[in-house]
Amino acid sequence: MTYCLAIQLHDGIVFASDSRTSAGVDHVTTYRKMHVFDRFEDRIFVLLSAGNLATTQEVLSRIQRDLETDRGAQSLGSVPHLSDAARYVGELSHAVQSRYAAALEKVGQTGEVTFIVGGQIRDQPQDIHLVYPQGNFISASPDAPYLQIGETKYGKPILDRVIVPGLNLEDAARCALVSIDSTIRSNLSVGPPIELAIYEKGELALSHHLTLKRNSPYYVSLQKHWNQGIRRAFETLPRFDWE
Amino acid sequence: MTYCLAIQLHDGIVFASDSRTSAGVDHVTTYRKMHVFDRFEDRIFVLLSAGNLATTQEVLSRIQRDLETDRGAQSLGSVPHLSDAARYVGELSHAVQSRYAAALEKVGQTGEVTFIVGGQIRDQPQDIHLVYPQGNFISASPDAPYLQIGETKYGKPILDRVIVPGLNLEDAARCALVSIDSTIRSNLSVGPPIELAIYEKGELALSHHLTLKRNSPYYVSLQKHWNQGIRRAFETLPRFDWE
Repeated sequence: MTYCLAIQLHDGIVFASDSRTSAGVDHVTTYRKMHVFDRFEDRIFVLLSAGNLATTQEVLSRIQRDLETDRGAQSLGSVPHLSDAARYVGELSHAVQSRYAAALEKVGQTGEVTFIVGGQIRDQPQDIHLVYPQGNFISASPDAPYLQIGETKYGKPILDRVIVPGLNLEDAARCALVSIDSTIRSNLSVGPPIELAIYEKGELALSHHLTLKRNSPYYVSLQKHWNQGIRRAFETLPRFDWE
Repeated sequence: MTYCLAIQLHDGIVFASDSRTSAGVDHVTTYRKMHVFDRFEDRIFVLLSAGNLATTQEVLSRIQRDLETDRGAQSLGSVPHLSDAARYVGELSHAVQSRYAAALEKVGQTGEVTFIVGGQIRDQPQDIHLVYPQGNFISASPDAPYLQIGETKYGKPILDRVIVPGLNLEDAARCALVSIDSTIRSNLSVGPPIELAIYEKGELALSHHLTLKRNSPYYVSLQKHWNQGIRRAFETLPRFDWE
């Protein structure tokens, strides 16, 4: 499995992802699930992916090819709006899945992938979209300012307690790391390194892009402080009336 | 959905459950999912249930009938070991499900129920068992001292950070409440009142059995303190090196 999330804030967007990939039980390995497209003058995109690795790689390779042969064809470099980028990724993804659907169905599998597509084009509003395997997509809202894909449930409570659109980018990034760390602790199929990208609105470039390995000093320190904080929070809980 | 859990500790067992039942979208209501059998001299059982409400009610009614006509027949009053109680509940559950399986399959449903069966018989060890819809069952272990059924993922991280077998009963009960509260906040299908039962090893009776409604002062206070504690924990997290 996988766990990726994107948080839409007044000041920008935070993207985070784990790196565990399992193609069957014996083939657990590490792949990046965050794909940054920032070689443009007037736009930036970050893609997060959860699902079939073969589909993901083929979609990414088609995105790359469309960029290289950009003569009138649709590509991330030419889409007029961010929602067109989401629709474009959805179409590619659905086309790739369809090609292998019959063969995969025979072995009880699907080639499904869910994407998050976020970023900004020129002075248009920044946004994040969740692209379903079927190609349709939704965006975040002020009431639900984050999107998650993959193994989403373990890390949701901390987001629901902390994330509001007015949070600053660094606090939101810390919350994303805690959300992923909680998932890693509770689910073997999600694992480090954790990739973290911070996009400041209007910059059209990432302000920070980190890879936190299991023994990265910042990640170790964050885990330690969070565990201590949780323990302290726990000790302050009210006693029952018979205690 | 539902969320129930049982925590096996050196000092006893903590049981907790929500009370939201949804039979279709329009029929959301409240049912107890914790069923206490404590009218015996030499034993006590607590059952927690997650799944089809009709199956649950028929299983409970059969358990009750077997208790009332206890002449040589198997019943919770006569099973020699706790694992026999789990096997007995599993057999009843599977038999009830089988009766309606064909009819339910036609409308794309199952009558599946998962149970947790915990308690103690005489001076035998206390224990908790998770009984699958198929009737087979597992018990908790020192490495995994809790069992969950229903909507289990949201509330798992806090258990994984706090629960160890040596924790005292009240702290484990608070952790169970936080685990359920986190689930309630993140998932509409789980809701109060929360039922909480604390069993002290060797007592063969519950020491405490509470129902916490949405506006119960203790539950409100627990939520407030936990939210404050999480916020404080959050504020103590290490800054990034560029901050």
